Amino acid sequence: MTEETLVKANERVDDLNRGGYRVIQDPDAFCFGVDAVLLSWFARVAPGERVMDLCTGSGVVLFLMDARYPGGDLTGLELQPEMAEMAARSVRLNHAEDHIRIVEGDVRNAADRFGKGVFDAVTANPPYMKKGSGLLNPAEAKAVARHEISLTLPELIREAGALLKPGGRFYLVHRPGRLAEILSTMRAFDLAPSRLIPVHSYRDKEATLVLVEGIAGGRNEMKVLPPVVIYEKKQVYTEEFLRIHRE
Amino acid sequence: MTEETLVKANERVDDLNRGGYRVIQDPDAFCFGVDAVLLSWFARVAPGERVMDLCTGSGVVLFLMDARYPGGDLTGLELQPEMAEMAARSVRLNHAEDHIRIVEGDVRNAADRFGKGVFDAVTANPPYMKKGSGLLNPAEAKAVARHEISLTLPELIREAGALLKPGGRFYLVHRPGRLAEILSTMRAFDLAPSRLIPVHSYRDKEATLVLVEGIAGGRNEMKVLPPVVIYEKKQVYTEEFLRIHRE
Repeated sequence: MTEETLVKANERVDDLNRGGYRVIQDPDAFCFGVDAVLLSWFARVAPGERVMDLCTGSGVVLFLMDARYPGGDLTGLELQPEMAEMAARSVRLNHAEDHIRIVEGDVRNAADRFGKGVFDAVTANPPYMKKGSGLLNPAEAKAVARHEISLTLPELIREAGALLKPGGRFYLVHRPGRLAEILSTMRAFDLAPSRLIPVHSYRDKEATLVLVEGIAGGRNEMKVLPPVVIYEKKQVYTEEFLRIHRE
Repeated sequence: MTEETLVKANERVDDLNRGGYRVIQDPDAFCFGVDAVLLSWFARVAPGERVMDLCTGSGVVLFLMDARYPGGDLTGLELQPEMAEMAARSVRLNHAEDHIRIVEGDVRNAADRFGKGVFDAVTANPPYMKKGSGLLNPAEAKAVARHEISLTLPELIREAGALLKPGGRFYLVHRPGRLAEILSTMRAFDLAPSRLIPVHSYRDKEATLVLVEGIAGGRNEMKVLPPVVIYEKKQVYTEEFLRIHRE
């Protein structure tokens, strides 16, 4: 199938600047950003591992992970049919059908559907905002992607914990405002928080994102790692972020 | 009373480099460090506020806070009689008896003793290690100061929450390894985590301390602030730490 038949008129194709990988995006829905780049770097996937990306959206985290850590067996779960269909076309665009699959469905019964204790790693870049907080985006697809309309944070963490093998890793990118809730909920679902990396847009400003890793059934102590800073100044990335983007 | 009669032969007097404040310390017990300096900076005490310092030890956090944020009414609670007696002598050495008092007693019934909801702020630099972890220090006073022999983290947080007025602030310095437990336990005792500052000995190494603030009955979101880095290189403090030390 040619690129022309894979991409619709209202969509655009973005090059991920990694081994030729591209992703189809709908500019009216939700386009990937710094959070997807950071999550794909934070998640350390070894060859042969089974990985589940929850709330996969356009599938961009899967493509970035596959380019960065090749050899994994990757699944992306997405609730919204149009989004899942678009992500599946990106898989074909990248000729990755043999090791990346997109499944349309609800995260809330993921473990019933895929099985308990079967994944080595689970990643998630979920909606950041609580239902009822912030302005709802008039475009439905954007609203579902940004707000916890169809999935709460505890539901997400519960399913991630259930999907993972003992010792398996959950990688989450979220807002610092939810950090206490994230860590408490992980503990409640037997995911031991193991690494925290605060992400700051600017060096001297409060963090805008947090990267959190939890180990299924872990007994480890938590580490707080040096922060990642994105911008040196307006529109100029830091060397460290460019290194993450490239490496 | 002269300095000679306030200080025992086995003790030393350290100048806090702040408005002439000094603290009596027993080198065989536990001497103050970077954590006390950071905690006294992190706690923001306004004139007229009532402040309780739990596990006060030598009282150093009280003296540093009083020098930094004058005008508060400060109480320090200490379990070990010899330590409490030594801290009380430091109060007299600093001529601060009218607004700083040391009380010998158990943190576990602090709210019963001092009253519920009566403090504007509570500070704590408690033992960092769980009972049974790490080597026990052969000197009893050091062991009690470093290990949770007489007080667990949940007991400490419970009492801090009970002592505070609604909207009152709890300021804690602790190890990153306990961060998830700290934030979960704060939430369980209706202390809303509000600020987190990771502290790194060196810029590129994992954090060695965390400063955590919680608001009694708060509904705030949590902020993760830029980290504090202590050393530029071995034995050379960073400018930012020197500024904190001075300001």
